[in-house]
Amino acid sequence: MDNNDDPVAVAEFLRGAMAKVRPLPTIDLDLTQACGCVLGADVPAPGPLPAFDHATVDGYAVRLEDVSGATAERPVNLKVLGDVSAASWRPVRLVAGTCFAVAAGAALPSGTDAVIPLNWTDEGMAAVQVIQAPKRGHGLKRTGSERAAGEVLAHTGRQVTPQLVALLAAAGVGDIIVRPTPRVVVIATGDELMDTGRISQPGQLVDVNSHALTAAASEAGAHAYRVGICDDEPEALRAVLDDQTLRADLIITTGGTGTGPGDMVRRTFGRDRTVKFSPVSVYPCNTIGFGTVGPEEVPIACLPGDPGAAMIAFEVLARPIILRLAGAEPVFRPSVRANLIESVNSPVGYREFRPVHVAERRGGGYTVAPLPGGPYTLSSLAEATGLMVLGEKVTTAPAGSTVDILLFDRHR
Amino acid sequence: MDNNDDPVAVAEFLRGAMAKVRPLPTIDLDLTQACGCVLGADVPAPGPLPAFDHATVDGYAVRLEDVSGATAERPVNLKVLGDVSAASWRPVRLVAGTCFAVAAGAALPSGTDAVIPLNWTDEGMAAVQVIQAPKRGHGLKRTGSERAAGEVLAHTGRQVTPQLVALLAAAGVGDIIVRPTPRVVVIATGDELMDTGRISQPGQLVDVNSHALTAAASEAGAHAYRVGICDDEPEALRAVLDDQTLRADLIITTGGTGTGPGDMVRRTFGRDRTVKFSPVSVYPCNTIGFGTVGPEEVPIACLPGDPGAAMIAFEVLARPIILRLAGAEPVFRPSVRANLIESVNSPVGYREFRPVHVAERRGGGYTVAPLPGGPYTLSSLAEATGLMVLGEKVTTAPAGSTVDILLFDRHR
Repeated sequence: MDNNDDPVAVAEFLRGAMAKVRPLPTIDLDLTQACGCVLGADVPAPGPLPAFDHATVDGYAVRLEDVSGATAERPVNLKVLGDVSAASWRPVRLVAGTCFAVAAGAALPSGTDAVIPLNWTDEGMAAVQVIQAPKRGHGLKRTGSERAAGEVLAHTGRQVTPQLVALLAAAGVGDIIVRPTPRVVVIATGDELMDTGRISQPGQLVDVNSHALTAAASEAGAHAYRVGICDDEPEALRAVLDDQTLRADLIITTGGTGTGPGDMVRRTFGRDRTVKFSPVSVYPCNTIGFGTVGPEEVPIACLPGDPGAAMIAFEVLARPIILRLAGAEPVFRPSVRANLIESVNSPVGYREFRPVHVAERRGGGYTVAPLPGGPYTLSSLAEATGLMVLGEKVTTAPAGSTVDILLFDRHR
Repeated sequence: MDNNDDPVAVAEFLRGAMAKVRPLPTIDLDLTQACGCVLGADVPAPGPLPAFDHATVDGYAVRLEDVSGATAERPVNLKVLGDVSAASWRPVRLVAGTCFAVAAGAALPSGTDAVIPLNWTDEGMAAVQVIQAPKRGHGLKRTGSERAAGEVLAHTGRQVTPQLVALLAAAGVGDIIVRPTPRVVVIATGDELMDTGRISQPGQLVDVNSHALTAAASEAGAHAYRVGICDDEPEALRAVLDDQTLRADLIITTGGTGTGPGDMVRRTFGRDRTVKFSPVSVYPCNTIGFGTVGPEEVPIACLPGDPGAAMIAFEVLARPIILRLAGAEPVFRPSVRANLIESVNSPVGYREFRPVHVAERRGGGYTVAPLPGGPYTLSSLAEATGLMVLGEKVTTAPAGSTVDILLFDRHR
């Protein structure tokens, strides 16, 4: 009668589980495919950045001494020796009293001290009038001024963003070593389950979990595969897993984690000793299973069958596993302190992860409010913007107290 | 000589551009495929939620009067008439002095007032000892207690999250009407461009933009297609567009937006009168083009060739267009007020969108710092966590002043 045992403290449970999950082995990916992944190695600059002296604006490449006195009242006239486009590769040279018309990105004629932008000139073709004197280095960038060859452009563990793609591409990097996107397989178990699009009735419940958790795994950055419904039949579950372990970096099941005779997931894996089912001090989850399956030792997270509890258990256990597999740090959601605007009760002995509405105050900081209609309905969860975490010893959090919140991110 | 004209105020430019972009026509999608999309119609509940009276915990379905006095010292004994699993569909009935063992999710025997959780009992099979009296309704949920049939579960304009998938699936919704994911085609133009993986040299610049902007469009929620490099050849560009307009909801080009003879994008579309190139008061972008191409009137955003400027122009113009196409509101990034920790100068007459480092203060609110190495290098942009917006009239923002920040989101 495990359910009467004191539950394992969630912090201890997570420590044990996370210690068994390692980041996926690194792979070499084309830069374009690697956005969103985490770097598995430092990326050194293949060459200096910029790679050569160039203009940063459309304008005229000049020598300082030729234009030092230029003003609107006393413009300086220069002969334009030619045009240098970004596609020009022939080296050219400035001589006294002359300039080149240069495009942004173009290599600088040798002897260039500055590039005068078009709007400081009359934009002349054969000759140009300059009406403002530049400082040395205006409108240009020198070789290696941003990064030297060999300098580390981005360190291991960093997530590849569009902005980092820009930097790496510009420096001449073509492919990078990253942790691959974790592949997550989601299986809902239960004889009572039927696919979506129908209304539940006694004996026939809609399979909420495989849909919602596949979406949640995708949102956490995984390639998520919805296997769908598996009946309460150990052989059927084993067969599904044998099929799936080849493509899975993590398997998530829902349902069948209790101690009753119908709790098939627990009965199937409980004997294996590679999956451990523990009553965990997470409210509203109760028992969660974690371990590995198959000779490949694929991690498996066995979550409760109740959809609300399954979503919380996903947040508590499965999401951190996905982030760990991806090599991300930190693996837990950002925690903020918030001012609670209404008193709430919390079950003693459990760390409650309660869906709440978090609002950012205009003056800074956050307020948090319980959800109308109670915390543990799917209607409320769908309105939640975060989870309020109330520790095992908390029985009441009074209005006005400061509480810890895990903030959901919304991609838009 | 457009560059000498006063630039169009960015607010006015955006108002004009956004007025021409409509959300994509709605489609009917399977719930599983719709996560991340925006609802194109209200979703009514097909039936009541929950659909029938059911247990929310594993336990014993009882009548209140049978267990009202139960305590650990004076337990109440009840005969267990049978088991009701979540897969049971046969209606059963409680009579005085009896109970049913019920699983979470199981339909309630008629006459049930409460479900006593296992840990308030000795978990007996034929008979059970109850050691704590429940309140009416404990451990169960009644038909329609969460939502009535026909009630709106989620309104038009709402983004579909994993939590909303859970609610809709549970209510019996199988597919929903959403705005499709916008398809964005990214084309970099310039004779000087070569593909990534090599170091730039005079006349041969790495194509940073098509890679970085494809990644940025994906991050903004689009299906992004990198067409890659197009030479400065009007016929080639026209041919690429003819191919792409069929699958594109938005075309992004980079380069060739200036007034010089080599500025091919402007020369190609400038004549069409359906694309307008305006000097815009956005620093560091200068000219941006916006309009439509082809008989399908596909929106096109023509961004600058300089990668740093292109990324800012993407933020200012292209990202809001993508969000508008997707039906999202608001289309602009969340703006927060932050305390500037170091003075900065800003060009007069331009609204500067300056990459910065934003930090959240533990006590609430934000601080913002300029990036070492100057704002407009790709190294700095890769470190930025937001854009500081300094208005057209601002020439200096002193340390300690409060400034507006557009916050980048990081998915992890």
